[in-house]
Amino acid sequence: MINDILKGLKNQEHKYIAQAISIVENNSSLNKNLLLNLKTSSMESIKIGITGPPGAGKSSITNQLIKKYRFEDKSVCALLVDPSSPFTKGAVLGDRIRMRDFYNDSKVFIRSIASRGSKGGLAENIDYISDIVEFSGFDVIIYETVGVGQVELDVVDSVDTTIVVLVPESGDDIQVMKAGLIEIADIYVINKYDRKDSDKLFLTLTNMLQLADKDKWIPKIVKTVAINDIGIDSLKDELAIHRKHLIKSNKGLDKYNDRFIKKIKHRLISDFENSFWNKKRYEFLNSEIEKDINDRLDIDSIINKIKSI
Amino acid sequence: MINDILKGLKNQEHKYIAQAISIVENNSSLNKNLLLNLKTSSMESIKIGITGPPGAGKSSITNQLIKKYRFEDKSVCALLVDPSSPFTKGAVLGDRIRMRDFYNDSKVFIRSIASRGSKGGLAENIDYISDIVEFSGFDVIIYETVGVGQVELDVVDSVDTTIVVLVPESGDDIQVMKAGLIEIADIYVINKYDRKDSDKLFLTLTNMLQLADKDKWIPKIVKTVAINDIGIDSLKDELAIHRKHLIKSNKGLDKYNDRFIKKIKHRLISDFENSFWNKKRYEFLNSEIEKDINDRLDIDSIINKIKSI
Repeated sequence: MINDILKGLKNQEHKYIAQAISIVENNSSLNKNLLLNLKTSSMESIKIGITGPPGAGKSSITNQLIKKYRFEDKSVCALLVDPSSPFTKGAVLGDRIRMRDFYNDSKVFIRSIASRGSKGGLAENIDYISDIVEFSGFDVIIYETVGVGQVELDVVDSVDTTIVVLVPESGDDIQVMKAGLIEIADIYVINKYDRKDSDKLFLTLTNMLQLADKDKWIPKIVKTVAINDIGIDSLKDELAIHRKHLIKSNKGLDKYNDRFIKKIKHRLISDFENSFWNKKRYEFLNSEIEKDINDRLDIDSIINKIKSI
Repeated sequence: MINDILKGLKNQEHKYIAQAISIVENNSSLNKNLLLNLKTSSMESIKIGITGPPGAGKSSITNQLIKKYRFEDKSVCALLVDPSSPFTKGAVLGDRIRMRDFYNDSKVFIRSIASRGSKGGLAENIDYISDIVEFSGFDVIIYETVGVGQVELDVVDSVDTTIVVLVPESGDDIQVMKAGLIEIADIYVINKYDRKDSDKLFLTLTNMLQLADKDKWIPKIVKTVAINDIGIDSLKDELAIHRKHLIKSNKGLDKYNDRFIKKIKHRLISDFENSFWNKKRYEFLNSEIEKDINDRLDIDSIINKIKSI
């Protein structure tokens, strides 16, 4: 089975890509381990993260970028990270809507992934999923997420360039989001730039970027009206400029290495948990939980006892 | 030192609460372990999570709720989870602004916490921080977070009642957020209800809740204009109703037990990592990373080799 999948991935067959991602999402550790050693390279695919508050127009920007890259005959994979439930394993709504535009295009693969799976969450799985789509040889890989939280930071680790999409109305929130945004954005997009207060947000952002560390990359600001295809070409140009910067400064390789190490550490933890938790240990833990709160041992003692079993 | 802190916590002294939270955030495992065994109970504090998209008015709602609870002479702790950077350890801007209202009130403790610390992130630390503030005996504990991502789901695990704040403009995003929201909200607030399209959002939400599992709690919808103190009393009533439901249905204890187990599991992983990674193992890992990507062993082999050292 795994050989079929590997062959399918190499041929960029959607059926097998979807199957491999499902293996990771379902977290069957046996099958997942088979996917651990996919060989990928640094800076081969163009890897873009798109994030920002709900309603900022991230989907429109993703859609327009896909079209532009398709015009150059590049293959594109878009992974939509849904703020999904731990129970229902994620809304598929997002990609169903988008699928329409690219339904007959075999070089576009779109898929929703759950921000929290049955176990462990996206942080661990994102590395596997990245490997799967990179191994499949897409020229461009786009991750789209909502908000600026832990998930987004995990995604940032997985991409080369992070775009933060804002709208003029976002102005009020800039203060609070300041610290988080300065760090993660390589490119800012002010979308719906035809609305009022656009220039005000542009100014606020420009001032904010004065605080950025000049030795590092200074984020660019791009003005767009994505729905009318205004500014998307500039955005694509900025993406190319940032990519050159990553290659020249070796930052791309640094990011690759960070992911490589993270993958090893995650796998070691997962091995530890699989071997550590056996029936007897679970039984002891459960027997404590069944007691009244005040009758339980303290956590330190429970841990020592579990280890000694 | 730890005895001073424990005593300070019991007396609800801000200085010691801040110090204990810093110990957790700085992740010094030695000191953190001393905080592992704080004895807390189920359903003693009123624990509320407030989340929603940026700009929805979460801060205003938090502020108004604090005022209401203070009016009843309840002590309140508000933890503002900032979408903060892994490098700068979080924006303190949020609470500085808010501090003003309650600056001289010794029964209000407000603090920003970073959504991602130097290691591991909030998921692990949130349990420690919850314990610290619960142990300090606050009558009300409010967590405020931005968005509906992994961080929010971690916070949901730590509170008893989750409020999702929306604004009329959120209507467009409801579809995409559907799955995530249905699961996490115990109470919806439509804030800025004086704006247009408020009734439309109310209708959309009401329809959406038809899909909720009737055997479980059906989330309530509260209309507010927080900035003018409209609807906040109703919100407080709904919080009390949900709390009664949790106590009656034993759900509060279930949540407490889930946190108890999670804490044990996290601690075991942390113990494993601390004992596993030694100098020789790190050296081997680094020697592989220094190689050209194509010359490296595959991850499986690296892991086996590291284990055998």
